[in-house]
Amino acid sequence: MKKQLRVGMVGYKMMGRAHSNAYRALPFFFDHDISLVTEAIVGRDEAKTAEAARKLGWNSYETDWRKLIERDDIDIIDIVTPNDTHEEIAIAAAEAGKHVICEKPLSLTLQQSKRMLTAVENYEVMHMICHNYRFSPAVQFAKKLISENRLGKIYHMRATFIQDWLMDPEFPLVWRLQQNASGSGTLGDLGSHILDLARFLVGEFEEVIGMTETFIKRRPLGGMGAMLQPERSQTKEYGDVTVDDAAAFLARFENGAMGNFEVSRFARGNRAGNRFEINGENGSIRWDMENLNNLQVYLEEDEPGLQGFRTINCTEMEHPYASAYWGAGHILGYEHTFIHLLDEFVRAFETKNNPSPDFEDGVKNQAVLEAVERSIETRTWSNFTDILQSI
Amino acid sequence: MKKQLRVGMVGYKMMGRAHSNAYRALPFFFDHDISLVTEAIVGRDEAKTAEAARKLGWNSYETDWRKLIERDDIDIIDIVTPNDTHEEIAIAAAEAGKHVICEKPLSLTLQQSKRMLTAVENYEVMHMICHNYRFSPAVQFAKKLISENRLGKIYHMRATFIQDWLMDPEFPLVWRLQQNASGSGTLGDLGSHILDLARFLVGEFEEVIGMTETFIKRRPLGGMGAMLQPERSQTKEYGDVTVDDAAAFLARFENGAMGNFEVSRFARGNRAGNRFEINGENGSIRWDMENLNNLQVYLEEDEPGLQGFRTINCTEMEHPYASAYWGAGHILGYEHTFIHLLDEFVRAFETKNNPSPDFEDGVKNQAVLEAVERSIETRTWSNFTDILQSI
Amino acid sequence: MKKQLRVGMVGYKMMGRAHSNAYRALPFFFDHDISLVTEAIVGRDEAKTAEAARKLGWNSYETDWRKLIERDDIDIIDIVTPNDTHEEIAIAAAEAGKHVICEKPLSLTLQQSKRMLTAVENYEVMHMICHNYRFSPAVQFAKKLISENRLGKIYHMRATFIQDWLMDPEFPLVWRLQQNASGSGTLGDLGSHILDLARFLVGEFEEVIGMTETFIKRRPLGGMGAMLQPERSQTKEYGDVTVDDAAAFLARFENGAMGNFEVSRFARGNRAGNRFEINGENGSIRWDMENLNNLQVYLEEDEPGLQGFRTINCTEMEHPYASAYWGAGHILGYEHTFIHLLDEFVRAFETKNNPSPDFEDGVKNQAVLEAVERSIETRTWSNFTDILQSI
Amino acid sequence: MKKQLRVGMVGYKMMGRAHSNAYRALPFFFDHDISLVTEAIVGRDEAKTAEAARKLGWNSYETDWRKLIERDDIDIIDIVTPNDTHEEIAIAAAEAGKHVICEKPLSLTLQQSKRMLTAVENYEVMHMICHNYRFSPAVQFAKKLISENRLGKIYHMRATFIQDWLMDPEFPLVWRLQQNASGSGTLGDLGSHILDLARFLVGEFEEVIGMTETFIKRRPLGGMGAMLQPERSQTKEYGDVTVDDAAAFLARFENGAMGNFEVSRFARGNRAGNRFEINGENGSIRWDMENLNNLQVYLEEDEPGLQGFRTINCTEMEHPYASAYWGAGHILGYEHTFIHLLDEFVRAFETKNNPSPDFEDGVKNQAVLEAVERSIETRTWSNFTDILQSI
Repeated sequence: MKKQLRVGMVGYKMMGRAHSNAYRALPFFFDHDISLVTEAIVGRDEAKTAEAARKLGWNSYETDWRKLIERDDIDIIDIVTPNDTHEEIAIAAAEAGKHVICEKPLSLTLQQSKRMLTAVENYEVMHMICHNYRFSPAVQFAKKLISENRLGKIYHMRATFIQDWLMDPEFPLVWRLQQNASGSGTLGDLGSHILDLARFLVGEFEEVIGMTETFIKRRPLGGMGAMLQPERSQTKEYGDVTVDDAAAFLARFENGAMGNFEVSRFARGNRAGNRFEINGENGSIRWDMENLNNLQVYLEEDEPGLQGFRTINCTEMEHPYASAYWGAGHILGYEHTFIHLLDEFVRAFETKNNPSPDFEDGVKNQAVLEAVERSIETRTWSNFTDILQSI
Repeated sequence: MKKQLRVGMVGYKMMGRAHSNAYRALPFFFDHDISLVTEAIVGRDEAKTAEAARKLGWNSYETDWRKLIERDDIDIIDIVTPNDTHEEIAIAAAEAGKHVICEKPLSLTLQQSKRMLTAVENYEVMHMICHNYRFSPAVQFAKKLISENRLGKIYHMRATFIQDWLMDPEFPLVWRLQQNASGSGTLGDLGSHILDLARFLVGEFEEVIGMTETFIKRRPLGGMGAMLQPERSQTKEYGDVTVDDAAAFLARFENGAMGNFEVSRFARGNRAGNRFEINGENGSIRWDMENLNNLQVYLEEDEPGLQGFRTINCTEMEHPYASAYWGAGHILGYEHTFIHLLDEFVRAFETKNNPSPDFEDGVKNQAVLEAVERSIETRTWSNFTDILQSI
Repeated sequence: MKKQLRVGMVGYKMMGRAHSNAYRALPFFFDHDISLVTEAIVGRDEAKTAEAARKLGWNSYETDWRKLIERDDIDIIDIVTPNDTHEEIAIAAAEAGKHVICEKPLSLTLQQSKRMLTAVENYEVMHMICHNYRFSPAVQFAKKLISENRLGKIYHMRATFIQDWLMDPEFPLVWRLQQNASGSGTLGDLGSHILDLARFLVGEFEEVIGMTETFIKRRPLGGMGAMLQPERSQTKEYGDVTVDDAAAFLARFENGAMGNFEVSRFARGNRAGNRFEINGENGSIRWDMENLNNLQVYLEEDEPGLQGFRTINCTEMEHPYASAYWGAGHILGYEHTFIHLLDEFVRAFETKNNPSPDFEDGVKNQAVLEAVERSIETRTWSNFTDILQSI
Repeated sequence: MKKQLRVGMVGYKMMGRAHSNAYRALPFFFDHDISLVTEAIVGRDEAKTAEAARKLGWNSYETDWRKLIERDDIDIIDIVTPNDTHEEIAIAAAEAGKHVICEKPLSLTLQQSKRMLTAVENYEVMHMICHNYRFSPAVQFAKKLISENRLGKIYHMRATFIQDWLMDPEFPLVWRLQQNASGSGTLGDLGSHILDLARFLVGEFEEVIGMTETFIKRRPLGGMGAMLQPERSQTKEYGDVTVDDAAAFLARFENGAMGNFEVSRFARGNRAGNRFEINGENGSIRWDMENLNNLQVYLEEDEPGLQGFRTINCTEMEHPYASAYWGAGHILGYEHTFIHLLDEFVRAFETKNNPSPDFEDGVKNQAVLEAVERSIETRTWSNFTDILQSI
């Protein structure tokens, strides 16, 4: 029988569901010497948590995350709660000797993130941050091309993550729109995703300068249900939006590349406009989450007259993960990015090397975000290393 | 506790894997009063079958499908074996009072298909045929638009299912290339898929005329593994290819629409070119399996000057199945078509109405295929109703 | 001073305008030893013809084409009148020793076309038929790739020319909808275009089978102005539509390739859906008139994993005609196809080789059309060579 | 007879050719009460200038632009020379009472541009700057949609003009790469184009912050021929590149919109990547010069479930300029943007209102460019109005 690692997950909303599905699907598609057992979830509302455990396939549940951490039958803590709770849970888990996998962004501030990193390092537990888009087969294939130097020296990355679900002025003031719960707005939520892709594919940042806007400054109180559907308040009370609706920033990378990044929840028609283009000396690539199986590739080595961006549906035997699935042209969905993320996580236990991206990536990601924020306050460029080392 | 229906599946190759995954995923995404239990699979090789049962998540296995049918703990027989075995298994299952779900095409000939339909009707069991592409959200949304008469009278459907995995002349003579095992070549394999979409979206056929070609007439002996990867023979013996490599046919539908259909395994660069365009009085739609979440929609009611095909990523609350998943712009993959097919299957038991598509659809599908074959033999148009009633 | 060839053009509507623009633009973009002089045009209405001459840049005009042919200062007759007048004008021109360039289709029937070919051959004049789409840079580039055997043996061509300007049942009964004036409907008008592309790119036809439909069988009387805009009748009298609204046909080429062709004026959302895909042993290409600068190219020789259709904007130095224009990414329009057609025409005089496509191409094109018509009458396949030689 | 305005053009390279073609084509497509006569061109090399006059269709030539300005038979001076010569020629022309049309950017510096504006205003001559991309039918249609408030309040514009013709390190040090001749690199050359689109479609800038890079800092001496083809030096001497290879900047518009702009000559695979997306409260639009007839339009008013970007081929009767051309789906090319620019120019004389864009637009465009440069020097945001009024 395989070695088992038993997971306890704190939270069960959209990301909890995506993780649960991935735990369930992982062994069907990938062979590992270790199996992950969906042992327990935590939620504050007992009835809802019990129902979630049943529906999402977990063996038991708790209503207090501290109880979960005390349990001997839990090896791994998976944190999918709002951002303001990550630090406390992660550090407590590490102290209890549990491995930690945590949703992005790592926490609200660089300082918190660093404390989390220190904890997991001190207690020598495995740690991973859930930047799932890295694990799209097309993005992994992009990484492979870049690692093999197929694009040559990188000159440019331009990336967006633009959405439009927040444009209705009557959309309620959900936790994501409150600084104290979410840390930041689009910059932290969406920006952290494309920053991770940038660090994964291009390299470390050197300096940044950015801007943000809050287009709608007051909103009715109310919550948010599944699929970003608003639960509207009946009372028509209003509160201040304390995070940005959109952000943009320019960057220099350590390797000399220029970066251009933009995130927004006010870009009509863009549901999940997570897209990038990278231009190198010898080639370019383009990717778009809404057709996430495709990578557009341009290679300068192609014969003149026959040069052009190729549309590659990354579902062939030569592409990452493809041999686990259905055959060329048979596409994968969003949820598979989480399955592949867990594949990386399990392999880390098998090889005893920490998975990637880990909390150090989370710290660096947070440092870029804080550098952008600093640049906005000071209206001038902000240096990544200075910020990283400042705390 | 929910009512359980216990499934026994005959076969476990690529389609068996797709079905297994769907059984496993169905309860995670959809709520039903009835649950399907993956009780047993059948394969001839005991070791491989045992391994498949473990890997694909089945409780037990048999090495003889007759044994499976004799078992009292099996309510449903799922047939995913080569086409030449469908008839015998399905009829035996029906006689034993088992419900039957069967991969497409229903069988090798119209005659066989009719006997299968007669059996399931006589023994009053549920029956379904696995035309999974109907269950792409974008195709279901297309169906909804057509049903609501958004396109008006239909004038045209043109569809292809074109691939390129067979173009290497040294690709071996796998069972799909042998008339006695597969019934026909691209016409049955790929043609049956697009015929089903045509019948689903446009209506019944009136008459057809077609052509076929076998571009490579002899091939080395050998088998085919997963993902259409060849297992090449060492002996370099050759055999005759007895099925078509490509087929095309024109059609008139009962409602007056014109149809144009083409299938091929010799269309370079097309891995899974399952695509259609339908033109109606008031609008048109386009779909492509390689980006199966998207539906292109043109509506004549749009303001002049602002008319154009819209690219709709069918992942929004208003789209079929979307509320079960991840949110707008978060796409689904090929495997979800099978999950939705099983959703239809389970709802049939809940509502006590036979699911759709069923064996009658399989018979009509087969009648179109035979009408095309007849038209090729006689070099003239062949009437669907005549063929359907001829046997 | 350059040698001059003086052109007399019969007709001045949309095609007359396209030709006039091309005569005017040719010397600006291309250097030739011979210059074409826009000497005279012919129209029946004197005032309108005088105005057209002025507006389109012709030195003089006539109201009787016979007068034009009698004029000694005319070397070339350019025929852009309705199809039923082509034969008489072309033969008279040839008899008078004038070179002839004629809009497509060559005439109403194969018999007429053959008489036209006989005349231009007997009188040893240059002759050309205006299949302008051949002269899109992307199509010329496609021809080059095929000629250099980059695609290998051709297995498939599928092509459409689908439009939607005729779908309003109140659109009047213009000459294009009357058999006696236009010869046929979409089959002759649009089909002749894609047949020419097929013969240019794939080769000669062997046999065909087709179908046609007239979806709207009676229409109000009235004319058609520029840009296919109807001039509606006030009287509300109706007449019979005597041509097809849509046609489709399958084909075998002499070289074994399969052909699939469809034309329609009832395909909503398709304004000028002149598109083809050609699949060969080693590669495939796709083209669409609505983005006519682009050629999609797939090459099997590409590295596995990096295979995909490339989008090539055919405006680079390596592409046909590009050196005459503006630089990479600076696209050309529809009108340039006529400029390039005249470039071919003038080079024919310089090299004293008849241009291509010529009246023999017109005859063969007509023979395919008649073979399709025969196949519709007889409901069975019709042989191209039999038809070609039958008259 | 129509009133004639006689044009003298200074310069005859690529832009001179584009202008010449437009003068030639304008009366063919558009009716005006005034006609523009291509009277004389100027070049320094007599033989080449004479040849250009013949080839490009001008009646005479001069080898000194001052001579041209002295000529009584010239009403309009068209300036298509390198940027460092614009000021002197334009002011002299205005002083001589000639109307002036000038290629972009207006000059090397804001100061020069202001002097040019002062001159044309003082001498009360018509003045226009050649931002041709405004005159793409799709961009004009975008303007119409925005003017009619179809997009509502504008939140975002992101635009690029990215190319790849300069990536070869051995590409010579042409005038465009020398600060003293070109004023700036990509920022002035490409940036001025997208800034003009931004000012045309979104409004005036408030503040900007930018960055530039010169990736290749020394290049061999040599010139540049037509179509950006290098004429390489034989001597292998190298010189310093004194302009930027790429630039990016963020912006706030006066109306509160966010802007994101990037230009580069180091973006592999992008030949003429002049593209933008604008997001408004009620809709979004996308445009790409490489398919310049298409506008992608998203309208929030569309029915939920049927929302998506529409691909609109702006060649229909309802679209700008379309009635002058060939019909729906029959696309226009790059050169037509200049024809439409001249249409605006001539209509200005007819209506006695200065054309748009004019030298004031040139000044404001230059002020944005200088604000970006200032922001780079100071590493902080730079205010548009401050810069504009500073000189």
